[in-house]
Amino acid sequence: MSKKVVTLGEIMMRLSTPDYKRFVQTESFDITYGGGEANVAAALCNYGLNGVFISKVPDNALGQSAINHLRRYGVDTQFIARGGKRLGLYFLEPGVSMRASQVIYDRAEAAITEADISEFDFDQIFAGTDWFHTSGITPALSDKAAALTLAALKAAKAKGITTSLDLNYRKKLWSAEKAREVLTKLCPYVDICIGPDATLGFHTGDTDVNLADLKLADYQHVFEQVKAKYGFKYIASTLRQSHSASDNRVSAAIYDGEKIHHTKQYDVRIVDRVGAGDSFAGGLIYGLITGLSAAGAAEFGAAASALKHTIPGDMNHATVAEIELLVKGDGSGKIQR
Amino acid sequence: MSKKVVTLGEIMMRLSTPDYKRFVQTESFDITYGGGEANVAAALCNYGLNGVFISKVPDNALGQSAINHLRRYGVDTQFIARGGKRLGLYFLEPGVSMRASQVIYDRAEAAITEADISEFDFDQIFAGTDWFHTSGITPALSDKAAALTLAALKAAKAKGITTSLDLNYRKKLWSAEKAREVLTKLCPYVDICIGPDATLGFHTGDTDVNLADLKLADYQHVFEQVKAKYGFKYIASTLRQSHSASDNRVSAAIYDGEKIHHTKQYDVRIVDRVGAGDSFAGGLIYGLITGLSAAGAAEFGAAASALKHTIPGDMNHATVAEIELLVKGDGSGKIQR
Amino acid sequence: MSKKVVTLGEIMMRLSTPDYKRFVQTESFDITYGGGEANVAAALCNYGLNGVFISKVPDNALGQSAINHLRRYGVDTQFIARGGKRLGLYFLEPGVSMRASQVIYDRAEAAITEADISEFDFDQIFAGTDWFHTSGITPALSDKAAALTLAALKAAKAKGITTSLDLNYRKKLWSAEKAREVLTKLCPYVDICIGPDATLGFHTGDTDVNLADLKLADYQHVFEQVKAKYGFKYIASTLRQSHSASDNRVSAAIYDGEKIHHTKQYDVRIVDRVGAGDSFAGGLIYGLITGLSAAGAAEFGAAASALKHTIPGDMNHATVAEIELLVKGDGSGKIQR
Amino acid sequence: MSKKVVTLGEIMMRLSTPDYKRFVQTESFDITYGGGEANVAAALCNYGLNGVFISKVPDNALGQSAINHLRRYGVDTQFIARGGKRLGLYFLEPGVSMRASQVIYDRAEAAITEADISEFDFDQIFAGTDWFHTSGITPALSDKAAALTLAALKAAKAKGITTSLDLNYRKKLWSAEKAREVLTKLCPYVDICIGPDATLGFHTGDTDVNLADLKLADYQHVFEQVKAKYGFKYIASTLRQSHSASDNRVSAAIYDGEKIHHTKQYDVRIVDRVGAGDSFAGGLIYGLITGLSAAGAAEFGAAASALKHTIPGDMNHATVAEIELLVKGDGSGKIQR
Amino acid sequence: MSKKVVTLGEIMMRLSTPDYKRFVQTESFDITYGGGEANVAAALCNYGLNGVFISKVPDNALGQSAINHLRRYGVDTQFIARGGKRLGLYFLEPGVSMRASQVIYDRAEAAITEADISEFDFDQIFAGTDWFHTSGITPALSDKAAALTLAALKAAKAKGITTSLDLNYRKKLWSAEKAREVLTKLCPYVDICIGPDATLGFHTGDTDVNLADLKLADYQHVFEQVKAKYGFKYIASTLRQSHSASDNRVSAAIYDGEKIHHTKQYDVRIVDRVGAGDSFAGGLIYGLITGLSAAGAAEFGAAASALKHTIPGDMNHATVAEIELLVKGDGSGKIQR
Amino acid sequence: MSKKVVTLGEIMMRLSTPDYKRFVQTESFDITYGGGEANVAAALCNYGLNGVFISKVPDNALGQSAINHLRRYGVDTQFIARGGKRLGLYFLEPGVSMRASQVIYDRAEAAITEADISEFDFDQIFAGTDWFHTSGITPALSDKAAALTLAALKAAKAKGITTSLDLNYRKKLWSAEKAREVLTKLCPYVDICIGPDATLGFHTGDTDVNLADLKLADYQHVFEQVKAKYGFKYIASTLRQSHSASDNRVSAAIYDGEKIHHTKQYDVRIVDRVGAGDSFAGGLIYGLITGLSAAGAAEFGAAASALKHTIPGDMNHATVAEIELLVKGDGSGKIQR
Repeated sequence: MSKKVVTLGEIMMRLSTPDYKRFVQTESFDITYGGGEANVAAALCNYGLNGVFISKVPDNALGQSAINHLRRYGVDTQFIARGGKRLGLYFLEPGVSMRASQVIYDRAEAAITEADISEFDFDQIFAGTDWFHTSGITPALSDKAAALTLAALKAAKAKGITTSLDLNYRKKLWSAEKAREVLTKLCPYVDICIGPDATLGFHTGDTDVNLADLKLADYQHVFEQVKAKYGFKYIASTLRQSHSASDNRVSAAIYDGEKIHHTKQYDVRIVDRVGAGDSFAGGLIYGLITGLSAAGAAEFGAAASALKHTIPGDMNHATVAEIELLVKGDGSGKIQR
Repeated sequence: MSKKVVTLGEIMMRLSTPDYKRFVQTESFDITYGGGEANVAAALCNYGLNGVFISKVPDNALGQSAINHLRRYGVDTQFIARGGKRLGLYFLEPGVSMRASQVIYDRAEAAITEADISEFDFDQIFAGTDWFHTSGITPALSDKAAALTLAALKAAKAKGITTSLDLNYRKKLWSAEKAREVLTKLCPYVDICIGPDATLGFHTGDTDVNLADLKLADYQHVFEQVKAKYGFKYIASTLRQSHSASDNRVSAAIYDGEKIHHTKQYDVRIVDRVGAGDSFAGGLIYGLITGLSAAGAAEFGAAASALKHTIPGDMNHATVAEIELLVKGDGSGKIQR
Repeated sequence: MSKKVVTLGEIMMRLSTPDYKRFVQTESFDITYGGGEANVAAALCNYGLNGVFISKVPDNALGQSAINHLRRYGVDTQFIARGGKRLGLYFLEPGVSMRASQVIYDRAEAAITEADISEFDFDQIFAGTDWFHTSGITPALSDKAAALTLAALKAAKAKGITTSLDLNYRKKLWSAEKAREVLTKLCPYVDICIGPDATLGFHTGDTDVNLADLKLADYQHVFEQVKAKYGFKYIASTLRQSHSASDNRVSAAIYDGEKIHHTKQYDVRIVDRVGAGDSFAGGLIYGLITGLSAAGAAEFGAAASALKHTIPGDMNHATVAEIELLVKGDGSGKIQR
Repeated sequence: MSKKVVTLGEIMMRLSTPDYKRFVQTESFDITYGGGEANVAAALCNYGLNGVFISKVPDNALGQSAINHLRRYGVDTQFIARGGKRLGLYFLEPGVSMRASQVIYDRAEAAITEADISEFDFDQIFAGTDWFHTSGITPALSDKAAALTLAALKAAKAKGITTSLDLNYRKKLWSAEKAREVLTKLCPYVDICIGPDATLGFHTGDTDVNLADLKLADYQHVFEQVKAKYGFKYIASTLRQSHSASDNRVSAAIYDGEKIHHTKQYDVRIVDRVGAGDSFAGGLIYGLITGLSAAGAAEFGAAASALKHTIPGDMNHATVAEIELLVKGDGSGKIQR
Repeated sequence: MSKKVVTLGEIMMRLSTPDYKRFVQTESFDITYGGGEANVAAALCNYGLNGVFISKVPDNALGQSAINHLRRYGVDTQFIARGGKRLGLYFLEPGVSMRASQVIYDRAEAAITEADISEFDFDQIFAGTDWFHTSGITPALSDKAAALTLAALKAAKAKGITTSLDLNYRKKLWSAEKAREVLTKLCPYVDICIGPDATLGFHTGDTDVNLADLKLADYQHVFEQVKAKYGFKYIASTLRQSHSASDNRVSAAIYDGEKIHHTKQYDVRIVDRVGAGDSFAGGLIYGLITGLSAAGAAEFGAAASALKHTIPGDMNHATVAEIELLVKGDGSGKIQR
Repeated sequence: MSKKVVTLGEIMMRLSTPDYKRFVQTESFDITYGGGEANVAAALCNYGLNGVFISKVPDNALGQSAINHLRRYGVDTQFIARGGKRLGLYFLEPGVSMRASQVIYDRAEAAITEADISEFDFDQIFAGTDWFHTSGITPALSDKAAALTLAALKAAKAKGITTSLDLNYRKKLWSAEKAREVLTKLCPYVDICIGPDATLGFHTGDTDVNLADLKLADYQHVFEQVKAKYGFKYIASTLRQSHSASDNRVSAAIYDGEKIHHTKQYDVRIVDRVGAGDSFAGGLIYGLITGLSAAGAAEFGAAASALKHTIPGDMNHATVAEIELLVKGDGSGKIQR
C-alpha cells in the first residue's frame, strides 16, 4: 500500500508567455496550474505515493480545470472544496540570460483565501495519512487561510502524522514582520522545516543571513540556532547560485541536529524555473518517507530539483529512475535508444 | 480635421480558448482586449475619426498591454489613469452550432472599479470633442464607476457635446432594479439611447417586452414610450435571431421620434460573436457624426455589426469601404484579385 | 453515493491533423485519446457518476499518457493492466463539406489485444457496480480480447449488474460473418443492446436493412425481431443523415418491447465527428441509471450526442445542465453573460 | 508509362493569415506555394501523371523552398531556371461569410518576369510530352514573360503536343485591352481554351458578357462565337455562384463545337478558395488525356474543383478515387472506418 | 514634458522562421516589424520619451500593419507618408550555436525608396524636437532616400536640433565606395556618430581596421582620426565578440574628443540577435538627452543592447528600471516574486 | 552529371514533443521523417548529388507522406516498394540539460520488415550508381530485412559499386550476439565501415572498448584490429563527449590502414540530437566521392555532423558552403547581412 501524503495550499492557473516573449509582446498564454503544495502532491504521485491535495476552488469551469490538471497527474482531489469568487492566477514571463523572470500574482479574493475550516473534515482527510505538508505561502494569503493552515497542522500533529513546512517567504505577499508572527505560531506543529530564510527571524544575533551567500561552515550555525529555538527534527534548504536566468548552480543542505549534509551541486540550463523548490520538498519527503537517510533524502530532493529545471510547468514529471540515475552521477543526457 | 469622440469604460484582457475547445480542454488562451466603449473607440479610429478612450488600468505590464492594444488600433490613450489592483479579465469559450459561448467574468477589484473622478480632467479631455459615448456596463461595475459615468455625462452635456449611451444590460453584473435605478439618473444627459431593453423599465404598462420577439409594428410603440419619458433624440437597437451559436440573422432599428427604420437583415456565419453590439454603436455614431440620416447611420451600423461577426476579437477591423459595399448589397464575399 | 459504471475496451492515442489539413499536408498532429468504452466512462464521470475503465496499456510513457487523459476527466483507472508491446493508435484526418473524414487505424499488436482474463480481478472490479458496458469493437480486436469481453459480461451478469453492448460494427476490423459469430455469443449476457445493424444478422428475412434509410414505421419491425431473438430489455440506435462531412441531422430511437420512441432531431454543424455514438450510449446509460424512462434516456442520449459534435476530441465534455437545456429545446446557442 | 504534361508559369510563396484573422491582426503567416500552372502540375502528379513545371526562381533559400514544395507533391522541377532578384509573393487574408478574401500581390521584379527564352531548352523539356498547359496570368507578368509564353506554345504546337490555356484574367495585373492584345496572339497555338471571359473580347457584338450571369442557353452562343473566331477544339469554363465567402455553388461547362455540357453543381463549404479554377483545369486535362469524353472530363474537373475548396493551400490533394466517388454522386462526407 | 526625438528610415515587415527551423523547413513565419531608426524610436517611447518616426509605407493593409506595430509601442506615426508600390520585407532564419543567422532582404521598390522630400513638412515635423536620428542604411536604399536623409539632417541642423547617425554599413546594400561617398556628405550635419567602421574610410593610413579586433588602446587612435576629420561631438561604437550564434560578449565604447570610455562587458545568451545595435543607439540617445555623461549614456546603451539580445523581435522592450539594474551589475536573472 | 548514391533502409515517421515537453505533458506532436540511410540520401541530395533511397512503405497516406518528405528534399523515391501493414514510427522526447532524450520505437510489423528481395530490381536500381550505403539498423529489423540488406550489398559489390556500412548498434533492437552474427556476414561486401563499436566484437582480446573513452593513441589499435580482420578500406567513427543533453563536444576519426586522423572538435549547443551520426556518414561519403582525402572527407563529415545538431529534424539541411566555412574554422555564427 502506497504511503499517503496530504498537502494543503492554493492551486493557481498559471498563464505564461511563449517563446521568451515579454508580456507586452504576447498574443497568447500557455496554461498550466501550480502552487507550492499542489506541486509537492503531484510529484509524490509521480513517484508512486498516494498524494492528496486539499484546497478550495471556484465552482466554475476554471476551478474544474485546475482539479482536472491535478487528477491528470494522479492527485486525489476528492477533498477539495468548491465555491468562492474566483481562481487565483499568476502571470509568468519566463526570463532568459540576464533578463529575469517576471511574475504578476493575481490572487485577490481567490477561493482559497475565503476557505473555512468547517469545509474540511480532517478526520476523514487524514485517515491513514503518513505525512502532512504545507508552506508559508498559504497562511500569507489571508487570515482565514492562516487559520486553516494552523488548524490542519494541529489536526495532523494530534493524529501523529509527520508534518513539514516549506517557509517560502514571498515579499510580494506579506511583510517580514507579519510573516514572522504568523509562521512562528505554526512551528510547534512542524517536524521538518524547509527554507529557514533569515528574513523570517530564524536566526539569533543581529545580522540578516542570506544562505546563498554563506560558506558551508556557516550553515550549521544558523541551523543550530533554528533547531535550538524550534526543535525541528530536520532543517533543510535549497541553495542556488544564479549566473543568469538561464544558468543556475543548485544544491541543498540538510541538518539533523548533529551534522549538516551538503548535496551534490548541479549546473542546470533552465527550461522552467518555477517549482524547483517544491520539487526539492517533494523529493525530500519521498526520500524520508521511503526510508532514506536525511542525507540520502536531501540528495534525492536536490537531484529532483535539478531535473525540474528542465521540465516545463510548475510540477515535476521526472521519474524515480531518472532522479536516482542523476543522484548516481549520470547527468550526461545521453539519448537512450 | 477628424471628428473627436471620447468614450469611457473598462478595458479587459480577454482570454479565449482556441479551436473550439472547451475550458476544460484548453492548454492555451488567445489574448485580445476589449470592452464596450473601448471597442467603439477603436472602430471609430478605424473609420478615420479621432477616438479617445478613458479608463483606469493597473500600473503593470498587463495594464500596459491593454493600452498597447488600443494604441495599435489608433486609439488615443493619453488620458487613461494608471493604478489600482488589477486588470479586469474575461474568459471566453466560443460556442458553435447548438453549443453556446460561455463567458466567465473576472472583474473583481479591477482598476476601473476604483477610479476616482479626480483622476480625469474633463476640461482637458473634452477639449474639441464632438461626441461622448459610454454604456450601461460601466456604472454596473461599482458605485465609484457609476459616479464617474454620471460625472462624465454631465461634463460632456455641459460642454454641448453629443452623448450616447448603450444600455447593454448584463444580468451577471447587477440586478434589473439596481440597473434601472442607476441608469435612470444618466438618461437626462443622453442624446442617443441604444438598446432600451424592457427589463430596464424603458416601457410603460406592465408587460416586459423583448424586442427581439417583437413584430416590426410593435417597435414604434415601445420607442414612442421611451421617447416620451426620456426625450432622447434617437433610440436605436440591434435585433438578432439566433439560429445557433454559428448562425444568426442580425439587423437594427432606429427611431427618430417620428418613424422607425428597420435596416437590412444579414445572415451571418459567426467567427466571433463578441463586440457585435459595440460595432453597431460605433457604426451608428460614425454615420451620424459624418452627416448620414438616422436611417443611413443605422444601416451603416447594422452592416458594421454584421461584418464584425466575421472578425476575431472584440474590435471591428472592417473598413468604411467594406461596410459601405455591404450596405449597398454586396455580401457575395467574392475574392478580389 | 454516485452510481458505479464499469466499461471495458481499448484506449487509443488519436493523432489528428489540424486546420482541416490532409495527411499529406500536415507537419503536426493534435493528440487526444479515445475508444468507445473509454469515451462512455469519461462521459459518465462528467455527469457525476463513478466511471471505471478497464483495459491494458503498455508500461511506457505513452500508456501512462493515455491513463492520465482518462484521469484528467475523472475516470477511475486503477484496474487498467500494464504491459504488452504498444499502445493502439489511430490517425484522423477530419473531413469537411463533401470531403469525408479519413481514419487510419494502427492497432496491430496493441496491448489490449494480448490482455489476459487473469489480469482482471472481476470480483474486485465489479464490487458495488451498477452497470457494465462494452462494445462490439473490443471482441473484434483479437481472440483474446473477445474471450475477455465474454468473461467480463458473464461475470457482470452473474453479479446481477445491468449490462449494455454497443454493437458498433467496423468493417475495417473484421468480416460481418466473424462479427456475427462472436457477437451472438455475447448477447445472452446483455440487457441493453445499442446499434443492431442489419449486417450483423439482427433481422429476419433476406434483406439487409440499413436503419438510416428506414421509415420510422420500419424500425419497430426490426427491433421486434431482434427483441424476439435475443430478449434484450431495450434496443436503441442512433440515426444519422449525412448532408456532408460538416452538416448532419442526428437523432435516436429506442424500443422497450412494446413501442418505439423516436427522439428529437438535431441539425448539427460538426466540429468533431468521432465519439458521437459513444456519447449517445453514455447519455442513455446516464438516463436509465438515474431513473429516466426509456424515452427520456434516449432523448438525453440524443441531445448528448448532438452536443458532442461541437466538441473537439473523442470524449463528451457537455454538462448535464447543457444537455437538459437542449432536450428542452434551446439550441439557440445564445451567449450567456 | 505515365502521360507527361508540362506547364509554364510563376510559382509564388503564399503568406496567409491563420484563424480568419485580418492582415492588421495577424502575428504570423502560414506558408504555402502556388501559381496557376504549378497547381495544375501538382494536381496531375497527384493523379499519377508525370507533371513537369517550368519557371524561374531566385537562387536563394526561398526559391529552393518553392521548388521543394513542388517536389514534395511529385512535380518534376529539373527544368526550372535559377536566378533573378526575388521570388514572387502573395499575401492572402481568407474571407468568411460576407467578408471577402483579400489578396495583395507582391510580384514586382519576380524572377519569372525576367526569365529569358534562352534559359529553357524546349527540345529537351518537351521530349515525350503529351500536353502543354499555361495560363493568361503568365504573359501578364511582363513582356519577357509574354514572349516566353508564346515561344513555349509555339514550340509545343510544332511538336504536335496538345496545348491548353486558362485565360484567367486578373484586373490587378493588366488592363483588359493589354490582355486582349497579348492573349489573342497566343490563341492560334491553343487547342483547349478555358475561361473565355468576355472582358477579353471573346465575344462578338457590343455587350460584355459575364458567364456567371448567363442562363445555360446563352453559353452555347458565346462559346460558338469563340469557337468560330479561334477554332479551339474545346472551350470550357467553371461557373460559380457566390452566396458568401464561405458558401459557393460551383459547376463547369464545356463546348465541343457541337453541344455544350453543363456539369453537376456542388454546394461547397469553403476551407480554401484559391486554386479552385486550377483544379478544374487539372481535372479536365486528366480526363481528356486519359480518354474520357469532353463531358466526362468536365465532370471530373468540376468534382476536383469542388473538392479543392475543402483543402487548405493552392494545390489539390484529392485523389482520383475521391473525385470519382463525388462524380458518382456521393458527397455525404461519411467517415470511413 | 517628454523630450521629442524624430527618426527617419525604413520600416520593414520581418518574417522569421520559428523554432530554429531553416528556411527550407518552415511552414510558417512569425511576423514582426523593424528597421534601424524605427527600432530607436520605439525604444525611446519605451523609456518614456516622445518618439516620432518618419518614413513611407504603401497604402495597403501591410503598410497599415507596420504603422500599427509602431503605434502599439507608442511611436508617433502621424507624419509617415502613404503610397508607393510595396512594403520592404526581410526574411530571417535565426541562427544557433555555430550556425549563423541568415537574412534575405526583399526591399526592391519599397515605398521608402521612392519617398520624395516634398512628402515631409520638416517645419511641422521638427517643431519642438530635441533630437534627430537616422542611419547609414536609409541613404543606401536609393538616391531619393539618400537625398531625403540629407535634407532631413540639414533641416534638423538648421533648427539647432542635436543629430545622430548610426553608420551601420551593410555590404548587401551597397559598395564601400558608394557608402563612403554618400555618407561623407551627411557627416557635416551630424553631432553624434555611431559605428565608424573602417570600411567607410573613417581612418587614416593604409590599413583597414576592424574595431572588434582592436585592443582597447587602439580605439582612441581611430576615434581621434575620425574626430579630427569630421568634428563629431561624440563617437561611439558597440563591440562584439561572437563565440557562436548563441553566445556573444557585448560592450561599447564612446569617445568625447578627450578620452575613450569602454563599458562593462556582457556575456549574453541570444534569443534574438537583430536590433542590438539600434538598442545601443537608443540607449545612448536616452542617456545623453536625459543628462547622463557620455560614459553613463554609453553604459546605459550597452546594457540596453545586452538586454535586447534576450527579447524576441527587432525592438527593445526592456524598461529603464531593468536597464539601470543591469548597469548597476545585477545580471543574475533572479525571479522576482 | 551528379554522382549517384543509393541507400537502403527504413523511413519512419517521427513524432516529437514540442517546447521541451515530456511525453506525459504534450498535446501535440511535431512530425518529421527519418531513418539512418534516408537521412544520408537526403544530405547527399542537399550537397548536389543524386541520392536514391530504397525501402518499403505502406500504401496509405502515411506512407505517401514519408515519400513526400524525401521528395521535398530531392531524394529519388521511384524504387520504394509500396505495401505491408504499417509505417514504422518513433516517438521522441527531446532532452535538455541533464535530462536525456527519450526514444520510443514503434516499428512492430513495419512495412520494411516484410520487404522481399523480389520487390527490388537491383539491375535497374544500381544502373549508373557510384556508391551504395546502408546501416546495421536495417538488418536488425527482421530476418527478411537482413536478407535484403545482404542481397543489396552483394549486388552492389558485384557491380563494382563502392559500399559503406554504418554499424549503428541499437540495443533496443537486438542483442549484441545477434548483431555480431548478422553484421559479420555483411562485412565482406563493405568498403567503408563506420562506427565499429566494440560491443559488436570488432576488437581482439577480451575487453569491451568504448571508443568515446579511448585516448587518441588507442584508436589506432582498435582500428588496426578491425582492419586486419575485415580489410575495410576506411574505418571511421564519430566521437562524442556528452556534457549534457544540451552541450556536446563532437569530432570524428578515420583510419586508412596506415594512419588515423582525428578531426577538429566542435562544442555544439544542441537543437536536435538525432541524425548527427548519419550526417557524418553523409558528409564522409560526399567527401570521398568528390575526391577529398580520407582526412578531408572526415573533416567535412565532422563539420556536417556538428552543424546538424543545430537543425531540427533527422535530416541535415546545411549547405556545402556552410560546412566548408566551418571546416575552415568559422564557427562564430555571425549574422550575414
